[in-house]
Amino acid sequence: MEGMPVSMGGLRTLPWYVAGSQVLGVASVVITGVWMGHYRGGYAWDGSTQEFNVHPLCMVLGLVFLYGDAVLVYRVFRNESKRSVKILHALLHMMALIISIVGLVAVFDFHSAAKIPHMYSLHSWCGMLTFVLFFIQWLLGLGFFLFPWASAQLRSWYLPLHVFFGLLLLVMAVGSCLLGITEKLLFNIMETYSRFTGEGVLANILGLLLVSFGVVVGYVVTRDDFRRPPNPEEEALSVHFKTLSEGEIPSSP
Amino acid sequence: MEGMPVSMGGLRTLPWYVAGSQVLGVASVVITGVWMGHYRGGYAWDGSTQEFNVHPLCMVLGLVFLYGDAVLVYRVFRNESKRSVKILHALLHMMALIISIVGLVAVFDFHSAAKIPHMYSLHSWCGMLTFVLFFIQWLLGLGFFLFPWASAQLRSWYLPLHVFFGLLLLVMAVGSCLLGITEKLLFNIMETYSRFTGEGVLANILGLLLVSFGVVVGYVVTRDDFRRPPNPEEEALSVHFKTLSEGEIPSSP
Repeated sequence: MEGMPVSMGGLRTLPWYVAGSQVLGVASVVITGVWMGHYRGGYAWDGSTQEFNVHPLCMVLGLVFLYGDAVLVYRVFRNESKRSVKILHALLHMMALIISIVGLVAVFDFHSAAKIPHMYSLHSWCGMLTFVLFFIQWLLGLGFFLFPWASAQLRSWYLPLHVFFGLLLLVMAVGSCLLGITEKLLFNIMETYSRFTGEGVLANILGLLLVSFGVVVGYVVTRDDFRRPPNPEEEALSVHFKTLSEGEIPSSP
Repeated sequence: MEGMPVSMGGLRTLPWYVAGSQVLGVASVVITGVWMGHYRGGYAWDGSTQEFNVHPLCMVLGLVFLYGDAVLVYRVFRNESKRSVKILHALLHMMALIISIVGLVAVFDFHSAAKIPHMYSLHSWCGMLTFVLFFIQWLLGLGFFLFPWASAQLRSWYLPLHVFFGLLLLVMAVGSCLLGITEKLLFNIMETYSRFTGEGVLANILGLLLVSFGVVVGYVVTRDDFRRPPNPEEEALSVHFKTLSEGEIPSSP
């Protein structure tokens, strides 16, 4: 996506977008917690539906909120060293990974205890695809960018793919959450959903908040004038060397 | 998204991505048609569930396939005049708009005849939001880019937003379709869905095909070296003047 010249919009709006994303992200986590805690009977770890309730909370917290914040760090910490920001990016993604694994174990446990077949729904297909691709992307990210294993050529080849798949996986995570919301509502309140009951409206609002979080994060990371400024000294030392095409600015994830 | 230097990947792969997108798009439309035609009793226009069946077919054909192709024209017709490509872009979007209006009328008719409340589900909220934003974006696109109403400044301000929202709306359209697939399956085959019945698996595959179509279109339009080459003569005559920031290439939607 091409951006406006800095003079027309510029960096002064960035903090507002970042603050907005955090309000939307925290609201999504809180509403998921309230939905499962208040309307669906709370949390447990015993194979019951209370164990299932851990699943939505972990996925929204891990694969949406923390994942989105991991994506944002390159825009938020514009003037820190690239290496520190990379480590923070990897750590946030590791937290997202661990929390989403807990969320996955919760739903598989619940299905096994309740003798419900695994992996039959579109939600499960999309969600598992998102998780597996996220895990692969995280491993590749470590290997290519954090450790000095890959050649500069390989890194510069992978970087635009890492950026594209990074944003794609956030979109797929949000989409999988929306499918999960729809499934959960139709399994539990199919009879009353069409009467605009509190639970149904709350869950729909949660869906819109998740979409809004994804939109704001996507806008911040694709807008040209929010991009991290290239630091010539760092660029010379690190992998982010200039590409061969004339006048091109080195890529920053 | 930053791209590779042209020498490393380049334009020779573009036709393969475009062909792939068309295979995925046509397959999505055909599978939707088969699902509604074979498993759900075919089509009619009488307020029955056969009228409902028109809805998924129109939305997949209009808001996903034709919409996606309208987005792709700037990459496919790289050497035609900008004005011709703009007109094709607007016409494809107009077809998408008309077909999706037919699809919306079908589902509202069906709900009214069956005394089902309108607009209570997350699918309906996301789908309607997508349609309304698409309609606004289409009107703004006409006003800003096809007719000489907007100033050059306004056009250059709106262009990156038009590009961002254009891709966002494709993502939202695909997401809304997936929510619709999940709703339809749980309304009709909740008892047998978990036994991996033919209809359930077919509809899940449709969901993955729609996601894949969106991913390929998104990749093609965000990859730097697939971008339409700037034509200095056209640029001088048209709205796509150079932005003020140093060395920046004028934006092409």
